[in-house]
Amino acid sequence: MYAITIPEPGGPEALVWDEVPDPVAGPGEVLVEVVAGAVNRADILQRQGFYDPPPGASPYPGLECSGRIAALGDGVSGWAVGDEVCALLSGGGYAEKVAVPAGQLLPVPQGLTVDQAAALPEVVCTVWSNVFMVAHLRPGETLLVHGGSSGIGTMAIQLAKAVGARVAVTAGTREKLERCAELGADILVNYREQDFVAELKQATDGHGADVVLDNMGAKYLDRNVQALAVNGRLAIIGMQGGVKGELNIGALLAKRAAISATSLRARPPEEKAAIVAAVREHVWPLVGGGHVRPVIDREIPMSDAAAAHRVVEESGHIGKVLLVTPN
Amino acid sequence: MYAITIPEPGGPEALVWDEVPDPVAGPGEVLVEVVAGAVNRADILQRQGFYDPPPGASPYPGLECSGRIAALGDGVSGWAVGDEVCALLSGGGYAEKVAVPAGQLLPVPQGLTVDQAAALPEVVCTVWSNVFMVAHLRPGETLLVHGGSSGIGTMAIQLAKAVGARVAVTAGTREKLERCAELGADILVNYREQDFVAELKQATDGHGADVVLDNMGAKYLDRNVQALAVNGRLAIIGMQGGVKGELNIGALLAKRAAISATSLRARPPEEKAAIVAAVREHVWPLVGGGHVRPVIDREIPMSDAAAAHRVVEESGHIGKVLLVTPN
Repeated sequence: MYAITIPEPGGPEALVWDEVPDPVAGPGEVLVEVVAGAVNRADILQRQGFYDPPPGASPYPGLECSGRIAALGDGVSGWAVGDEVCALLSGGGYAEKVAVPAGQLLPVPQGLTVDQAAALPEVVCTVWSNVFMVAHLRPGETLLVHGGSSGIGTMAIQLAKAVGARVAVTAGTREKLERCAELGADILVNYREQDFVAELKQATDGHGADVVLDNMGAKYLDRNVQALAVNGRLAIIGMQGGVKGELNIGALLAKRAAISATSLRARPPEEKAAIVAAVREHVWPLVGGGHVRPVIDREIPMSDAAAAHRVVEESGHIGKVLLVTPN
Repeated sequence: MYAITIPEPGGPEALVWDEVPDPVAGPGEVLVEVVAGAVNRADILQRQGFYDPPPGASPYPGLECSGRIAALGDGVSGWAVGDEVCALLSGGGYAEKVAVPAGQLLPVPQGLTVDQAAALPEVVCTVWSNVFMVAHLRPGETLLVHGGSSGIGTMAIQLAKAVGARVAVTAGTREKLERCAELGADILVNYREQDFVAELKQATDGHGADVVLDNMGAKYLDRNVQALAVNGRLAIIGMQGGVKGELNIGALLAKRAAISATSLRARPPEEKAAIVAAVREHVWPLVGGGHVRPVIDREIPMSDAAAAHRVVEESGHIGKVLLVTPN
């Protein structure tokens, strides 16, 4: 098969579409013939040499895909060759075939094409596990989402609205904020021109955010704590603004607030399977019913993954950038 | 009645036993004739002028007491005049009488005298709400308790052992560590001579602490994160080592770990009542059965509260220091 390889870490040009050995489905795994993958920030870090795949994972980038089951490993039940699926991966989604534990598979939801389904696994699993399983966002509460027009952001807006929460977002352009509003966001903050703490406090009569979903890390740590409501929960899923920051423990304690930080990729297969099962139970009916939709910026041939990385690195996209194979 | 007043913030001598008006039980409250109160670190901060009582609370210090019900306010059921009780307070425990919401009352447990019960409400409610209700310590997990010989520490050791967890403690003297061991602590760290991160990692084969109960705040923040296991939870309940500290978000994220910070006093009555109800359900049977006991350092006449504060400020105690009234 062909896959995107990274002979030497570097810029987008480091991504090389090359012929490699086919993967094999081990016990409990299935082999998926990939129709589409999708770009995540972690792929860019891996390309740059800053984020090695976890032990046992495919050496190729790509944390999610969609396609058709081509073979079943020993001990797999509930799936058949030819099934249209999407999957959460530990790597290897930038390829024509990938082997994945059966617990990380989801059926292509009703109403979506196979390629569109590649936009779902990472964002849905990340948002559901952090905003709902860890931070327990409840109806009537307020969620603040940084990067509201990203793949994660566009899904967080829709899921939070679907459960009856109020949603505030930050983004860097009017066009991105308008798209967030179309998806249901109630409070729009242009982080280039406005202070999100002040805007959020004003829009919520001083209450603040019950849950914050953050991809910035250190740069926003202090302001995120300021933005929290009493009993608020800050869920950190990225560190685009740095790794180490000053924490005001006094402010956290006065609010009886909590901070969690997670990543999906490093979780063991049983934790991934538990998240995927929860997503299938709680989110898939919302997608199948048309209440929640993947937001897809564009589709690019997988062999030109470099072009897709350039789009994401320039933040020129809204939602997900997909990589389609010749399959 | 008499109560400890604070005419001017300052050292222990700022505590003045003086005649003051009797409190009155409002709707939903009971009036308790106090037999004993107990000293908490928050009382010292209040005496120093750093921790004003929350709105509506008694101006006198004292976050817990035991005694007998002297009167019932409107709408109180389930309690009778003469009942022996202990109570979680928002203030006013350093006094001969105190009015308290009925939801913050607990019966004196079987096997304890009324005065002994004054050692329980703050520590049991703090440990249960943080270690179990927030951080969800589970059987087989490891709890690290800083200040293992404090009132909080001696209760945390016993409760964690009672549910089948492994317990590591830090303390500053051999005598204090020996007392922790008698209560069931498995891993003993003298923080004056040893590095708790290294000792804990060695004693747990590199696993670390699933839950850390911390009273130091900033000073221990980075090392507490280092000490956490994967999926670990750091529960901060005090800031004796400072308010602002550098948080390594990358380390937290790599462990999928969480930090919470809480205080009991500022919670609204309904949250206090929920904690007290959980304590009565889960902890009171352990105390009544003799599996968990209050650790009482000494009893001092309440009129000499200054002497009690000196003991606690010098960390010369193990467990709780009680203040007994002439009642």
